Amino acid sequence: MSKYYVLDTETVFDYIQSQLSYFSDDADIECNEIGDGNLNLVFRVVDKKNDKSIIVKQSLPYVRCVGEEWPLNINRAEIESRILKIEHDLTDGLVPRTYKFDPIMYATLMEDLSDHVIMRTGLLELNQYPKFVEQITDFMVKTLLLTSDVVMDHQEKKAYLKDFINPELCDITEALVYTEPFYNAERNNIDDFMIEFMENNVWNDDKFKLEVAKLKFEFMTNAQALLHGDLHTGSIFVKEDSTKVIDPEFAFYGPMGYDVGALIANLVMNYISTDAMVEDENRRETHKEYLLSSMRDVIDIFKEKFLSLWDEAVTDEMAKTPGFRECYLESVIIDTAGVTGCEMIRRTVGLAHVKDLDGIPIVDKKKKAKKTNVLMAKDFIVDRKSMKTGQDFVDMVRKYYE
Amino acid sequence: MSKYYVLDTETVFDYIQSQLSYFSDDADIECNEIGDGNLNLVFRVVDKKNDKSIIVKQSLPYVRCVGEEWPLNINRAEIESRILKIEHDLTDGLVPRTYKFDPIMYATLMEDLSDHVIMRTGLLELNQYPKFVEQITDFMVKTLLLTSDVVMDHQEKKAYLKDFINPELCDITEALVYTEPFYNAERNNIDDFMIEFMENNVWNDDKFKLEVAKLKFEFMTNAQALLHGDLHTGSIFVKEDSTKVIDPEFAFYGPMGYDVGALIANLVMNYISTDAMVEDENRRETHKEYLLSSMRDVIDIFKEKFLSLWDEAVTDEMAKTPGFRECYLESVIIDTAGVTGCEMIRRTVGLAHVKDLDGIPIVDKKKKAKKTNVLMAKDFIVDRKSMKTGQDFVDMVRKYYE
Repeated sequence: MSKYYVLDTETVFDYIQSQLSYFSDDADIECNEIGDGNLNLVFRVVDKKNDKSIIVKQSLPYVRCVGEEWPLNINRAEIESRILKIEHDLTDGLVPRTYKFDPIMYATLMEDLSDHVIMRTGLLELNQYPKFVEQITDFMVKTLLLTSDVVMDHQEKKAYLKDFINPELCDITEALVYTEPFYNAERNNIDDFMIEFMENNVWNDDKFKLEVAKLKFEFMTNAQALLHGDLHTGSIFVKEDSTKVIDPEFAFYGPMGYDVGALIANLVMNYISTDAMVEDENRRETHKEYLLSSMRDVIDIFKEKFLSLWDEAVTDEMAKTPGFRECYLESVIIDTAGVTGCEMIRRTVGLAHVKDLDGIPIVDKKKKAKKTNVLMAKDFIVDRKSMKTGQDFVDMVRKYYE
Repeated sequence: MSKYYVLDTETVFDYIQSQLSYFSDDADIECNEIGDGNLNLVFRVVDKKNDKSIIVKQSLPYVRCVGEEWPLNINRAEIESRILKIEHDLTDGLVPRTYKFDPIMYATLMEDLSDHVIMRTGLLELNQYPKFVEQITDFMVKTLLLTSDVVMDHQEKKAYLKDFINPELCDITEALVYTEPFYNAERNNIDDFMIEFMENNVWNDDKFKLEVAKLKFEFMTNAQALLHGDLHTGSIFVKEDSTKVIDPEFAFYGPMGYDVGALIANLVMNYISTDAMVEDENRRETHKEYLLSSMRDVIDIFKEKFLSLWDEAVTDEMAKTPGFRECYLESVIIDTAGVTGCEMIRRTVGLAHVKDLDGIPIVDKKKKAKKTNVLMAKDFIVDRKSMKTGQDFVDMVRKYYE
């Protein structure tokens, strides 16, 4: 094959064999398109006879959930495939292994993780993942700190910075996270009951929007570390003893807090969702407590590991100045709180929602949950400079549920 | 010619003719190498008969003032030539016009500005330049604001960011401005009388070095605007009614305050120099007052034009939020004060000095000047968050001369 075409379940098996000869001749193949993201096709191809499987992820030249009128450069697939390799090496396997990237079809052939479940789904089923905090903090500390100027040779860092400039995907984040939710934008996906509420609490609050503007420019200009760029619970596969981060196509050099905050926001939204959805009091409160302690631990263990890896890996002479690592980390946590708020707002009224909130079946509870979500998000943003510990994040959530 | 060779006064005329046929057959040619920078050869070629002249600037593959043991990628010449064009267009001609860039010889053929004088030299001769503040603030506001995310399409800005990643030249700044002056580094060029002074006041002051570390990381990670990157008074040509900024080879996306601060620092050092060197009281005090009012006006007029161009040119929706332009500008001025201090220190004890200080003939006055320079620099850095107006900058200098 020497020309790009869109794969389908009929053609993907032959495609895999032409690339890798992955399956043996006696294979009994089943093939499904399992992509539920917004930008790509994802095929799972299984040889039931020999218990062997593989994933093929192909970039589409447009935004899938919108259609061909929103074209998108397919070379993001190459960025994603390179990032997966880098993250795999940095984290000792906390992302899927890639077998091959095909620059003609913009497709990556990679490890099948079907024994894992998407974390958002797992949390909505009230499951707990005892290794998650340990593994996700490992992932974040290693991918962020080890790609920063604190540790990397500065010229090599600039080569990475250049390779991973990602204009189109950043454009999506800049618009959908940091701009459109803050006015009555056409692309917003907003419930009727939220419109007046947003007008009163967000769209006409210039003092608040000023804080969002600062965070937007921080996102656009702070080339601090090689981010995952979309680290919500839909980009994380989990099972009892394993965590795997997927879908790094939004990767670029940005502020570390963008990754940590995206994760925290999605834990908070699952908390709000749990409160509104789970009728059994015991199960509800247990899961809420689990989420709060996960949040607290993500922040505190992230901080602890960050300082300890700093001491091990720091190379920049000035970064070794006593007190600098604490200042640096403090500003990462402040960013984290700000991003938490932005992510919560855009998932409530922006183009791309989360099942946690949209799936709340009782309308009055959904209304309350979404409004609480926006108000808490505002607090995260406005009070971000006072957020220092995991407990501060927990207290911010508890304040609305006393 | 299809291969790079180092030009000399014998070969440069034929080279120019092969590139441009710039001179006519009856030309009476005089040719000089006039480069006094650290990195390049600069030839001025004059046809005395027809009153026509041209500059050829060629990159050398090593740092000129150190020698071949410090190699340097010559493709910086291409960056410089592109930047000159961009700055020329943005500022309506406040940089020399380029005629041609030759990617084989890494040479730029450009406008001869020999009717101008290097500003550092002019200031040391106690000259005043009545148009300077107006023109240099125009240069800074336009080149900085119009290349930022406030104004540029964000995807185009990222394309610029990518094109102007400048690892080797940034490495020089990171080492020579932000690192080596803050310990007893081998490459430092330091008078014996400064060693104990630096130990007592800088090298062992961790609280102070922490502030420098923050500024260093700001320099490395804040991709705010397309900087000139080396905007000291040796990079500015002046005459009575004209200002031309030259030598933008350090250009890259960095914090706006880096350009403004480099300029302010060099005005401050000329003030300190004037105080120590000029015996005639009237001439001395007149020039000192001229320098103070230039500093004050550079800051205040920069601020005024910045806000006014912002309103004219802003495109980013969130940047239009009331209050944001003032916050943004405030942080540029804080950076400016920090950079001012760093530039002053590195020019006193780092590898590359300035004539303003080194040229002070009386040893005791030189000692006092250099020490004052370092102490004032510390104040600029430590107190940078309180620096808001031109008067604040003036007061900082006056404090040491009451």
